[in-house]
Amino acid sequence: MDIGRLRSDTPGCARVAHLNNAGAALPPRPVINAVTEHFALENTIGGYEAAELNAPAIERFYDAVARLIGAGADEIAYVENATRAWDMAFYAIPFTEGDRILTTMSEYSSNAIAYQQVAAAKGVSVEVVPNEADGTLSLDALESELAKGDVRLVSLNHVPTHNGLVNPAAEVGRLCREHGVLYLLDACQSVGQLSLDVREIGCDMLSATGRKFLRGPRGTGFLYVRRQIVPTLEPPLLDLHAATWKAPGGFEMREDARRFENWERYVAGQIGLGVAADYAADLGIADIEARARELAARLRAELSARPKTTVLDKGERPSGIVTFTVDGHDPAEIKDAARKRDINVNVANPIAHGYDPHAVPAAVRASVHYYNTEEELDRFLSVLP
Amino acid sequence: MDIGRLRSDTPGCARVAHLNNAGAALPPRPVINAVTEHFALENTIGGYEAAELNAPAIERFYDAVARLIGAGADEIAYVENATRAWDMAFYAIPFTEGDRILTTMSEYSSNAIAYQQVAAAKGVSVEVVPNEADGTLSLDALESELAKGDVRLVSLNHVPTHNGLVNPAAEVGRLCREHGVLYLLDACQSVGQLSLDVREIGCDMLSATGRKFLRGPRGTGFLYVRRQIVPTLEPPLLDLHAATWKAPGGFEMREDARRFENWERYVAGQIGLGVAADYAADLGIADIEARARELAARLRAELSARPKTTVLDKGERPSGIVTFTVDGHDPAEIKDAARKRDINVNVANPIAHGYDPHAVPAAVRASVHYYNTEEELDRFLSVLP
Repeated sequence: MDIGRLRSDTPGCARVAHLNNAGAALPPRPVINAVTEHFALENTIGGYEAAELNAPAIERFYDAVARLIGAGADEIAYVENATRAWDMAFYAIPFTEGDRILTTMSEYSSNAIAYQQVAAAKGVSVEVVPNEADGTLSLDALESELAKGDVRLVSLNHVPTHNGLVNPAAEVGRLCREHGVLYLLDACQSVGQLSLDVREIGCDMLSATGRKFLRGPRGTGFLYVRRQIVPTLEPPLLDLHAATWKAPGGFEMREDARRFENWERYVAGQIGLGVAADYAADLGIADIEARARELAARLRAELSARPKTTVLDKGERPSGIVTFTVDGHDPAEIKDAARKRDINVNVANPIAHGYDPHAVPAAVRASVHYYNTEEELDRFLSVLP
Repeated sequence: MDIGRLRSDTPGCARVAHLNNAGAALPPRPVINAVTEHFALENTIGGYEAAELNAPAIERFYDAVARLIGAGADEIAYVENATRAWDMAFYAIPFTEGDRILTTMSEYSSNAIAYQQVAAAKGVSVEVVPNEADGTLSLDALESELAKGDVRLVSLNHVPTHNGLVNPAAEVGRLCREHGVLYLLDACQSVGQLSLDVREIGCDMLSATGRKFLRGPRGTGFLYVRRQIVPTLEPPLLDLHAATWKAPGGFEMREDARRFENWERYVAGQIGLGVAADYAADLGIADIEARARELAARLRAELSARPKTTVLDKGERPSGIVTFTVDGHDPAEIKDAARKRDINVNVANPIAHGYDPHAVPAAVRASVHYYNTEEELDRFLSVLP
């Protein structure tokens, strides 16, 4: 990997040390150009006219994302972000009273809110599977819950936002297949930084965002739904793109994953996200993952060696997300001090992980990506108290 | 109105005669610049960092839209498009078995699909109120249906996409208030071209898009919900922005209209849509409406005088949407021929209006806006068969 070339391909690298890739990464020039050019075309010849002219680039999005995650293009939907992608899958599941949903302690609270909403409306129970000592979902505990029956859905995040953890997604997939249970994977923080193949993982549905490790535009995301599952799911919201009107009073849903889309969209963003997916796949996700993990490991080692600093990350092989606290210093204060020196980090808020009683009050989150450098990490370390 | 100045403020005017404003209008330079500059800032300093820096412009969106439609900023939600804005209101209504939904013959089929979905799920009936002879919703018929009781919702479009019609939105509002019935107005084709005040109309909910007559970016829209109604509506999808997590297993929804939003979004688009709303309000919607109607009336008069041409528009005071057919010529052929001469029109597809048995098979749709010129209309007329 030619880091120098990759950085000169990323305008933001000249301006900031960006360690907020779990927030929104800096996009590379091909993504920026694709969005900028389509937006300019819309403004020059008209929005619909630009979409007709750029139809191949819009279609390319589906192939690019499918290639990136080992899916078919017919299994991909373009959705405005990961939350809505996840929603379109989750709320489409035909739960009935007594169904059980199994999730994980590190689950994102947005998803937890959705579980509670459906639990209240449909008499479904939500159960949080315990962790192993290393913070990952306990596969033994999951298996014993699955064995009790009535589980309709196993739903968990691949990489939570707050502690570097990588959940054992493929092992969960094996258990779900054994028990014939639906499996929804929230891959918001993993797509673009970790090798990820939906067939290997064995998930039925996977949601992701464009803006994070995939380096796409804000306001973009996608949903994967396994083609055998699509006909069993009725999206919670339907329009004239997701379904066809059948007079006098009926409709027929699309047969591919685009039944989870709606017609109008940020078209320039969709094209840009397709370019971002191709950019990542062309670079090679295995190399991306190796470098992000190596940089994160280096940062963790340096942080751990510092007095008063506590690294909070969990799991045997953590991701590019590094979280820590410094005794006597508010994480927001550290974030602001870094920002003043053009270093971007974020604050991990425990409210985002409401099931996890061991979450610390708040932490600094430095999330690295392959285009970061050792020098940037050193620079960040040098501004810490 | 200084049309020359307004056109030089619109880069697209130099390139095309854009008569597809009911599809997506050409944005003015301030909108283009706002989107472009925020997107560039994201790419230079990071997506979250750019949003923090531009927080006032993001907040301005709410005030600008509220000002444009006579609402309070707390009654406005940013949603990715009009379809999803409408969905977030419609699917939030707590229908119970036996409830009646009243709508109009010119209703958009996307909405009709949603009615059918909810009707099937909740045992609600959907009833289409007949039109007057001029094509507008019959107020007498509406009143007699309301008098029969059990109506939970009156839901209709303000301006349908296919025939120039303007439905009597304020008169409908009066009847809904008299009968204490919820009123959802789909203003996708009216906001930005017609004077519109939510208090005068008396609607409880109003959905709109950015890209059409408002001249905002694609992939943007908004929802208005009257503040007294907000607490009675539970959005069909909820996230950590719309609601707050309450451990161990509950949540609390926001009290303002942002409960219908979700957190991640096309931020540059939101800023651009706020600028578009201010641009329209600064110009004066009354003047915008007068000029769009005048240009449309002129085009209709010219078309009506042509042999073999049939103007299909309805209503006593039609909008800027002009639809017609030419005997022996497919509308798509006319659209393509115009496009070759840099004139943009669209084809109105009757499938979009599934309740209307009198819809012609398909029609040419030329939708004008205030920045169009008489010369552009003449140019279009000259390429017609």
